[in-house]
Amino acid sequence: MIDKLIQNIKRTGAPIVVGLDPMLKYIPEHLQKKAFAEYGETLQGAAEAVWAFNKEIIDSISDLIPAVKPQIAMYEQFGVEGLIVFKRTVEYCKQKGLIVIGDVKRGDIGSTSEAYAVGHLGSVQVGNSRCRGFDEDFITVNPYLGSDGVKPFIKVCNEEKKGIFVLVKTSNPSSGEFQDRLVKEAADRPLYEIVGEKVAQWGEDCMGGTYSNVGAVVGATYPEQGKVLRKLMPKAFILVPGYGAQGGKGADLVHFFNEDGLGAIVNSSRGIIAAYKQAEYAEYGAERFAEASRAAVLAMKKDIAEALQNR
Amino acid sequence: MIDKLIQNIKRTGAPIVVGLDPMLKYIPEHLQKKAFAEYGETLQGAAEAVWAFNKEIIDSISDLIPAVKPQIAMYEQFGVEGLIVFKRTVEYCKQKGLIVIGDVKRGDIGSTSEAYAVGHLGSVQVGNSRCRGFDEDFITVNPYLGSDGVKPFIKVCNEEKKGIFVLVKTSNPSSGEFQDRLVKEAADRPLYEIVGEKVAQWGEDCMGGTYSNVGAVVGATYPEQGKVLRKLMPKAFILVPGYGAQGGKGADLVHFFNEDGLGAIVNSSRGIIAAYKQAEYAEYGAERFAEASRAAVLAMKKDIAEALQNR
Repeated sequence: MIDKLIQNIKRTGAPIVVGLDPMLKYIPEHLQKKAFAEYGETLQGAAEAVWAFNKEIIDSISDLIPAVKPQIAMYEQFGVEGLIVFKRTVEYCKQKGLIVIGDVKRGDIGSTSEAYAVGHLGSVQVGNSRCRGFDEDFITVNPYLGSDGVKPFIKVCNEEKKGIFVLVKTSNPSSGEFQDRLVKEAADRPLYEIVGEKVAQWGEDCMGGTYSNVGAVVGATYPEQGKVLRKLMPKAFILVPGYGAQGGKGADLVHFFNEDGLGAIVNSSRGIIAAYKQAEYAEYGAERFAEASRAAVLAMKKDIAEALQNR
Repeated sequence: MIDKLIQNIKRTGAPIVVGLDPMLKYIPEHLQKKAFAEYGETLQGAAEAVWAFNKEIIDSISDLIPAVKPQIAMYEQFGVEGLIVFKRTVEYCKQKGLIVIGDVKRGDIGSTSEAYAVGHLGSVQVGNSRCRGFDEDFITVNPYLGSDGVKPFIKVCNEEKKGIFVLVKTSNPSSGEFQDRLVKEAADRPLYEIVGEKVAQWGEDCMGGTYSNVGAVVGATYPEQGKVLRKLMPKAFILVPGYGAQGGKGADLVHFFNEDGLGAIVNSSRGIIAAYKQAEYAEYGAERFAEASRAAVLAMKKDIAEALQNR
C-alpha cells in the first residue's frame, strides 16, 4: 500500500494528508440545522451533519491530495451512528481514489490486536464467507504493548498489502512524559528511539517497494527528534501530525523527508477542514467552507513545496 | 463508580470480572448456524451469533459476579454490526446490575481523548441535547501519549462519576519490550513504575471513597511487578488480566490485593466464556455452554477466595 501512497503523492505533487476530524463546532450551522431538522438533535443527526460536511470537503479537495486521515474518535463520540458515517467516509474517499489512513491508534495483546487488524485492514471469516469491517488502507497503531501487540497488524498488512503507522513520538505537549524517558543502555537513549528502532525492524518484513508498509508517527512539533528518527528508520514513511493548528510549519518539516523527497506525509486537520473559521479565509464565509478548505490545501502544498526546495 | 464496583464485589464475595471477548471459534455451532440462517454469513450474522452467545452466558452468571469486561476489538472486527452488539451487551449487562468495564484501550492527544471520553463514558452535546454513545461504567486507557492524553478521561470521570483503568504493566509476553525498560533517574526504575506513579497522581483528583476512580491494568502473569505496583499505587484498584488461559493462578494474585482484601479485580475471559471447550467442563457439551461458564465462575471464585484466605 505504501507504493500506492507514493504514486498518489507523486501524481498530486503533495506529500500531505488531510485529517477528517469533524468536531461539531467546526461544522457550519446551516449543515447542522439541516441534519437536525431531518434526524433530530440525536446521535444520528450529529453523524449526518458530519457526513454532509465531510462530503462537501472531500468533493472540493480530492483532486489536490493523495490521502485523508479520518480520526475515528471524532466519529466514535457519536456511538454506532458516528461509526456508520466513519465507514461511509472511508468508502467514499476510496471511491475518489484517495488513500485512507484510519487514525485509530489501536493496540492490544496478540489475539486482540489480530481482531483489530482484521476489522480495520483485513477481513474476518464468517462461516464460509470473508467479510470486511471498516477496510481502511492504513491505520495508526499504539506500540505500548510491544512486538506481540504489533505483529498481528503486520501479518494482516502482508496478507492484504496494506500498511500501518506506529506511534513513535507523538505531537502533543506531554508526549515526552514517557516517550522521552532516557532508557539505560550502553548509550542512554530516549524511549522513542528504541521504539523507532523496532519500527525499522518490524518494517523489514513488510516492504512495499523502496519503502516499508510499516511507517511511524512523529509529531511536526518535534523537528529535532524527527531528524534523528529519520536516520534511524530510513525505509519507514513518517506520518507527521501537528502541522498548522498544532504549531508546526513547513520549514520545520524538511528533516522528516529523505533525500529522494519522499519518506514523509504531513497531516493537517483543523487547519484545512475548519479553514473558513480562520481570519485568513474568512472571506469565504460558512456557506463556502469547502472552498476555504481548498484554498487552505493549496497554501499548505505551497508552504511544504517551498520548504523542500529551500532545504 | 469505584464505590459501586466495591459494593458489587462485597455483595457477590468475588473480586472477579468476566471478559466478554467472544471470538466466533468460541461460539457453539448451533448458535452460529441459527444466526447465519436468519442473517446470512455476514457481519450481521456473526454479530447476532455473538449476541445470542453473550446473552445466554450473562443470564447464567450475572448473579455470581460484580462486573463484566467486554473487549471491544472482538466486536469491532465485525464492523458497525459488531459495535451494535457491543452496545447492546453493555446495556444488557447494566440492566442486570453488572458494572461494565469497556476494554477499549483508547488514548490519543488531548482533544481526541476528549472525544473518546465523551463517547464511551460521558455524553456529547448535539444542538440542545446531550446524547450518550456507548456509555460504559469504566474503560481501559493507554497512557503512551502522557498526561494530556489521559486527563480528558479523568475530567469526564469526575463529571460522570465513572472510572478508568490505565495500562501500566500488561499481561502479554512482550509487554516488557518497552514497559520494562530501565529509565535513567536517581534510582533507575522500569518505565512501568513511572507510569504507575503517574496513575497514583492522576487518581488523587478523582477519588470515589477510599479508592480512586483511576485504576491500573497489571497482568496476572507478572506477580513480582504487581507486588511493587500495589505499594506504589495504594489507592488504585488493579484490574488483573491474564488469569486462567493466559497462565495466571489464584496464588499468584494475592499481592495485587491490599490488606483490606480489596484493591484488585481479576479478569478471566476464555477460561469462563469458552469453558465448555475445556476437558474439565466437557461433560456440559456445546448445548449447555452457559452452564459450563457458571461452573467455571464458581471454580474461579473458590480459587481466589482460598488464595486470599491463605495469604
